[in-house]
Amino acid sequence: MLSTMQDGHLSIGTLLRHGSKVHATSEITTWTGTGARRETFAELGANSARLANALRALGITGDQRVGTFMWNNAEHMAAYCAIPAMGAVLHTLNIRLFPEQLVFVANHAEDQVIIVDGTLVPLLAKQLPSMKTVRHVIVANGDAATLQAPDGIEVHSYAELLAAQPDTFDWPDVDERAAAAMCYTSGTTGDPKGVAYSHRSLWLHSMQVCMTDSMRLAEDDKALAIVPMFHAMSWGLPYAALMVGASLVMPDRFLQPEPIAQILDAEKPTFAAAVPTIWQGLLQQLEAHPQDISHLREVVVGGSAAPPSMMHAFEENYGVPILHAWGMTETSPLGSVARPPAAAEGDERWAYRYTQGRFPASVSARLIGDNGEELPWDNEAVGELEVQGPWIAASYYGGSAVDPEKFHDGWLRTGDVGKISPDGFLTLTDRSKDVIKSGGEWISSVDLENAVMGHPAVAEAAVIGVPDEKWDERPLVAVVLRQGQQVTAAELREYLADKVAKWQLPEHWTFVEEVPKTSVGKFDKKRLRALNHDGKLDITHF
Amino acid sequence: MLSTMQDGHLSIGTLLRHGSKVHATSEITTWTGTGARRETFAELGANSARLANALRALGITGDQRVGTFMWNNAEHMAAYCAIPAMGAVLHTLNIRLFPEQLVFVANHAEDQVIIVDGTLVPLLAKQLPSMKTVRHVIVANGDAATLQAPDGIEVHSYAELLAAQPDTFDWPDVDERAAAAMCYTSGTTGDPKGVAYSHRSLWLHSMQVCMTDSMRLAEDDKALAIVPMFHAMSWGLPYAALMVGASLVMPDRFLQPEPIAQILDAEKPTFAAAVPTIWQGLLQQLEAHPQDISHLREVVVGGSAAPPSMMHAFEENYGVPILHAWGMTETSPLGSVARPPAAAEGDERWAYRYTQGRFPASVSARLIGDNGEELPWDNEAVGELEVQGPWIAASYYGGSAVDPEKFHDGWLRTGDVGKISPDGFLTLTDRSKDVIKSGGEWISSVDLENAVMGHPAVAEAAVIGVPDEKWDERPLVAVVLRQGQQVTAAELREYLADKVAKWQLPEHWTFVEEVPKTSVGKFDKKRLRALNHDGKLDITHF
Repeated sequence: MLSTMQDGHLSIGTLLRHGSKVHATSEITTWTGTGARRETFAELGANSARLANALRALGITGDQRVGTFMWNNAEHMAAYCAIPAMGAVLHTLNIRLFPEQLVFVANHAEDQVIIVDGTLVPLLAKQLPSMKTVRHVIVANGDAATLQAPDGIEVHSYAELLAAQPDTFDWPDVDERAAAAMCYTSGTTGDPKGVAYSHRSLWLHSMQVCMTDSMRLAEDDKALAIVPMFHAMSWGLPYAALMVGASLVMPDRFLQPEPIAQILDAEKPTFAAAVPTIWQGLLQQLEAHPQDISHLREVVVGGSAAPPSMMHAFEENYGVPILHAWGMTETSPLGSVARPPAAAEGDERWAYRYTQGRFPASVSARLIGDNGEELPWDNEAVGELEVQGPWIAASYYGGSAVDPEKFHDGWLRTGDVGKISPDGFLTLTDRSKDVIKSGGEWISSVDLENAVMGHPAVAEAAVIGVPDEKWDERPLVAVVLRQGQQVTAAELREYLADKVAKWQLPEHWTFVEEVPKTSVGKFDKKRLRALNHDGKLDITHF
Repeated sequence: MLSTMQDGHLSIGTLLRHGSKVHATSEITTWTGTGARRETFAELGANSARLANALRALGITGDQRVGTFMWNNAEHMAAYCAIPAMGAVLHTLNIRLFPEQLVFVANHAEDQVIIVDGTLVPLLAKQLPSMKTVRHVIVANGDAATLQAPDGIEVHSYAELLAAQPDTFDWPDVDERAAAAMCYTSGTTGDPKGVAYSHRSLWLHSMQVCMTDSMRLAEDDKALAIVPMFHAMSWGLPYAALMVGASLVMPDRFLQPEPIAQILDAEKPTFAAAVPTIWQGLLQQLEAHPQDISHLREVVVGGSAAPPSMMHAFEENYGVPILHAWGMTETSPLGSVARPPAAAEGDERWAYRYTQGRFPASVSARLIGDNGEELPWDNEAVGELEVQGPWIAASYYGGSAVDPEKFHDGWLRTGDVGKISPDGFLTLTDRSKDVIKSGGEWISSVDLENAVMGHPAVAEAAVIGVPDEKWDERPLVAVVLRQGQQVTAAELREYLADKVAKWQLPEHWTFVEEVPKTSVGKFDKKRLRALNHDGKLDITHF
């Protein structure tokens, strides 16, 4: 028996109509380095219509892809609205991809048009000749004349293009399951893989962002979106803000601690989202130049684990609670959020807050052990996390759902390894490819790294598994010393003795100038393994 | 281009699995008159499985309908979970329907089984012989032996039935657009009409209930669900509580002011939902017997307009903000919610709070004028409200979407008349069938009623339009005097003189013993019009 309820409705077009009308006076503020420029949601609606008209005039039809190569600013927000609402697909190009990856994703998505910020023109220009489907480049916030494009690519000024267009557009009805936006993951293995979010998944995810037990975004918020709009849709903030009329503060290219502190002082946002390194930088800035940041009701931290010390510093020194969250490009990205249960008290609340958080109803989770068996939620059994839900990827663009490395009977294999408590709180201990399998037990590379990095002489430490005849694998620690500091491998091993189980104590150590990093700044353990395999590391064995 | 996101997931089965596992320790408390009995969400999961097994054993298959004729209690909650999760359809029978309406809806929905509370057995038993499809009656919270059922209907004890069943059930995958639950509207014209909610609409609506700008239900809430579970799904509280792990307090049949005050005192809920008459009753109770109710962070009022005086009394005398909301059975029911914009201050906040509220992104609204034209949102133009969205009815069960009285190009005609402010706040002024069309202008019957009821001698006043040769229609006021009070029509007309526009002053007055009421206690103006048409009213004309 079918229900009698209406269908449809869930689309970026509906969202834009709603936000620009019901929340016409809410604002998008873009930082300029010395101050702010402001645009209301009503103006966003008008500019989105102008952009859609302009793209139509350039020949964009159907579900063609339009790329953005931009910072977080009002023009990027108009692209977020106009492109999906007109039925096309927004492709947010990650400006930090390696050049060959950038070319790969633009060609793979078959981007027809790219909108680029003026300051990013030099970065894009070099790769443009290799992008085979791009026909137009639109330069926003800069001088279009600075771009010398190859033959066959027309260059336009964003401002001039929009000025020539009407400020209304008849947003079409779209199938809620059609792609609205794409984001490629920049894994350490193989080519980047495209995740295509649907109108439906973005709508549901936006509702989640505004739920009280999630990020609780509301009309009375002013949200500082530090996490780039090319990283998993800026964690859902732009669309969620449009949904409830929260004002947005966009830092543009000013992401260093000092301008972030200036933005906080000038705009007094109530909420902000960023990776731990941004917050660590801000903390150092605040220690040197104290400033009241208690206007922030809460800040959300994800992307990688938030160190407990940082969480305490924010809360105890500045009165700002840090909300720990877990997600990935393939999960839109909101997975779990670490709000303690109401019944938890005192230190127990902190223990919950250190975890990666609790799964909402829309994200089902399970842990899978070595032999494919489902593990219990006892906060002890450690396995690979698999997730399922309406904003979780079922496949990659151009790929297949039958990819046993990534999907498993309709569940997404996250590649993250951890445990889950009986009440649904996730604690991650490693990436599945980095976990060290020693004598039938698992050793968390992340736990070892954190333990070694607790030593005052250590700046960074990366741990990989190396083959071992007796135990299958044993840990190798690559250490970067702090400038001017000295410590031996034997001393570090001694230092670890009361911090990790005896059988986990690493017997292979090496000192390096730096740990190789991926384009998004994570340890590139694949390259570290290659260096070891090629005998390029000077290793002390115990 | 299709997205790469997963589909499915939105079902009561998923919700039950989530709530009973992740929020296993959250509770459903049922009031017993002198105390409370408690059940955890884990136990709810087990009892729901037992009930599903029992229903399967009674032959319930596919999308057959199972009726409930129950108060708000833990057993009704298990029915809410088990019936849709097993793929069948929950039909909540309104215990306050007139007998012939009750028979009509049970036959129309083709209910196979009815679960009834022991105290309601006498009310159901009289109509059971007329219910043609019912094969089984399950008596909960009472003695099954008290029910003498007609031939062909088996009677069972809920407790015995469940005790014999296993506490797990393999909840099937269901299409999210399939019907999960049905509720019939008890209109004043024609037969009741069935609204069939889908798994999808219930899921989306539950998310809305938990959004910060909506009812902001969260894990740390304890929600007192006074609004009956047979009235538009208790305004979404049961499923939303399961979604986030909010505990539920169920008053069972104890809905009078004194037991409600006892429940508040004993359970200290943080949130509650009920129609204005319940809150008015509680207010009088509290005035006679003062009690601290500041544990309520907020209470939601809908169903009919909340008098401003009541909103002030709750907030100023008891520290409890009343949240005004609008909805109807056809809207699941959450339509608009009256949270003032962040920018509003002082009295302006109150002005916003008196309105029926602002529409969320998932509910689009428009106003339609006399000639079918769309009216502006200027807080002046008055027209009929039409709404659209994923939890809004597209048709009635067994009916057609092509019903120009109720649906209009894919929009639901609400039958409510009002105006909308530029920032999306709705103010209702009348029901469309009750508005008085006088000389091309509209007179709100509700506004006139409220003005007349402001006179101290008046207990109730109902206003209808009567035919007028010159003006088309003019208002007729039917007045019920307070006991022992006297006032003439001329005095009332004089009293109104400075309260309504001169051209709106009614020239037809009548005094009656009581205003006819519908089964849910609203003025039955259809019967009042019939009395007037038949010359049964003694009218004073000016």
